[in-house]
Amino acid sequence: MPETHAGQKSKSEQLDFANYFVSYGYLYHQKDMLQDQGRMDGYRNAILMNARSFAGKVVLDVGTGSGILAIWAAKAGAKKVYAVEATSMSQHARRLVAQNNLQDVVVVLEGYMEKLEIPEKVDIIVSEWMGYFLLREAMLDSVLYARDTYLKPGGAMYPSHAQIIMAPLCANLHTQRAGEYADELGAWADFSEYMRASNGVEIGGLAEYYDREQFEYLLQTAHWCQLSQAEIIGDEFNLCEMDVHDVTVPQLSDVRCDFRSEIVAETELTAFGGWFDVQFKGSAAAPAGTPVPLSTAPGAPTHWAQQVFLVHPPLSVMEGDVVEGSVRLCRQKVNHRLLYVQVRFTLLRGGAPVEPERTCNYRID
Amino acid sequence: MPETHAGQKSKSEQLDFANYFVSYGYLYHQKDMLQDQGRMDGYRNAILMNARSFAGKVVLDVGTGSGILAIWAAKAGAKKVYAVEATSMSQHARRLVAQNNLQDVVVVLEGYMEKLEIPEKVDIIVSEWMGYFLLREAMLDSVLYARDTYLKPGGAMYPSHAQIIMAPLCANLHTQRAGEYADELGAWADFSEYMRASNGVEIGGLAEYYDREQFEYLLQTAHWCQLSQAEIIGDEFNLCEMDVHDVTVPQLSDVRCDFRSEIVAETELTAFGGWFDVQFKGSAAAPAGTPVPLSTAPGAPTHWAQQVFLVHPPLSVMEGDVVEGSVRLCRQKVNHRLLYVQVRFTLLRGGAPVEPERTCNYRID
Repeated sequence: MPETHAGQKSKSEQLDFANYFVSYGYLYHQKDMLQDQGRMDGYRNAILMNARSFAGKVVLDVGTGSGILAIWAAKAGAKKVYAVEATSMSQHARRLVAQNNLQDVVVVLEGYMEKLEIPEKVDIIVSEWMGYFLLREAMLDSVLYARDTYLKPGGAMYPSHAQIIMAPLCANLHTQRAGEYADELGAWADFSEYMRASNGVEIGGLAEYYDREQFEYLLQTAHWCQLSQAEIIGDEFNLCEMDVHDVTVPQLSDVRCDFRSEIVAETELTAFGGWFDVQFKGSAAAPAGTPVPLSTAPGAPTHWAQQVFLVHPPLSVMEGDVVEGSVRLCRQKVNHRLLYVQVRFTLLRGGAPVEPERTCNYRID
Repeated sequence: MPETHAGQKSKSEQLDFANYFVSYGYLYHQKDMLQDQGRMDGYRNAILMNARSFAGKVVLDVGTGSGILAIWAAKAGAKKVYAVEATSMSQHARRLVAQNNLQDVVVVLEGYMEKLEIPEKVDIIVSEWMGYFLLREAMLDSVLYARDTYLKPGGAMYPSHAQIIMAPLCANLHTQRAGEYADELGAWADFSEYMRASNGVEIGGLAEYYDREQFEYLLQTAHWCQLSQAEIIGDEFNLCEMDVHDVTVPQLSDVRCDFRSEIVAETELTAFGGWFDVQFKGSAAAPAGTPVPLSTAPGAPTHWAQQVFLVHPPLSVMEGDVVEGSVRLCRQKVNHRLLYVQVRFTLLRGGAPVEPERTCNYRID
């Protein structure tokens, strides 16, 4: 791939832009995010309740969108805020900055973080970079680039820490998806008959492949879901914990954990759930006076909701059973902004396996 | 962009594949298309009712999908059928060919039409290449490549001819979309108040931009719709007519027509509708014994349905009024598989304009 001139996009960048960034160029989408109460409360409190950390500081907002974090940082007393946005939403951000009389503090820059030149080092980097299951979208990569390139020694990242949390579930979604799966297998049988009768073509031999395709789509793709606490049937565990001040892209690209989760009810294990928390605690050198958490756990009112990884067929479980295994999270090959998740687990009762280890593979698309 | 090795995909091809071709790799999607009665009747009749045209011939099927056209061509007596498919659906096509005992006739080849080598020239090219409004997806480009590279002089294209047809409408969809548009403007007002009250940020200045964005999305994007005949309020006209034997990619990339349509009722002009027909008539040198049409007009049972281009605000029209103007269809810049449509028109009553010419721009995404 030849080097592109600054400001020009290569063909693959154009397509990544068309696929990924473009949605962030719509006010409709920004409005959705700005109406996400949990998200807004977290960031607003993190910045405005820590105004002493921001006062007189130089701040960089990576992916400013409509400019909201940059505006709050300026209101918290920042001396200068560089607000970087890859889409033409930057023009709206500039308008909002002016409408809120902060044009002397906030400088909006349109372009890719990796291609722009910020004219000085910064004390604080704020960014709302989190995707589903924390890492979908791979936007943190750009934030880490900004950190490594522009953050002063002792500077602080907002958010500063993040965790991905998982738990075994008896998920309502399983009933629904398993029902759809059964319906599809019936529909294929009808379809085969129609193909023979109306079109003179035998298609029955593809039944097993249709089964597999539907299984992958309905039961091996992670689903966005607003879980209730009642669906959690065992101990939560962390897939990963990161300090945003020192985590690296290679670490984000292949995340693994071993886990052990005790089941707390006699029920069915039908899924694993996954979500994330972030914290705004500042850095060791520049701690936030008022640490602020932002959780996307079941019950939290955010647009991220939770990801559900179905277990099919389900497993009967008893109180005191233990689910033991490992989880691996990595990036998809063609589109690095999407994810693969693998969960390997064994159900133990009285310390002995109830069935052989299962390996479940999922896509987060 | 460096040349890629045969069989390898460049980064931009990978993304085009991920965006466009990938859906054709799912049996679920193939099943949908195979259950499209109008589509199936057209192609089945075109091939099986013209078995004399296919008997003993060499046939190429471009984008064979599940292999259905290739199988029919073989059943019609073709000597050899090359069935080209860019996705891994080729494997299912190969299975179906075998299940229908046609493996001695049909050769399934996986790859891009433009990158494969077909070992001989062919007498007939069959292909189901039509997208919404005929030209969305730009798949015809690959069919024309195949024609120019492999069709023998005097050979025939199936389908052989195509038209894009348009007509003025009083469309039910207009009421719905105009209502959604009004709702969105109200929602923005509520949102602005929330941003001020809860988040301390003035966002009112973006109202006009949100208005424009919603107008573009709801009223300037072409909508898929199953129209009824009753929604057509004036003469139909052809945006283009093509003979698939000699049309070229540059002609497809910028299509224009002037039109004149007489209104047949006192009502409101709220949209233009667009759809297409194709015919299987063979070529001048090898005409089909039984010409077969395939229409996607209002009332025809196909998955293509129609495209609706809304006119907002609507125009009151009288019987005998004339809508006169021009239509231009061209490809989108970033993704050439998508389209732009521009309609310029004047409403004439007694030969005089009722209002100045309007220019309406649409995306087919």
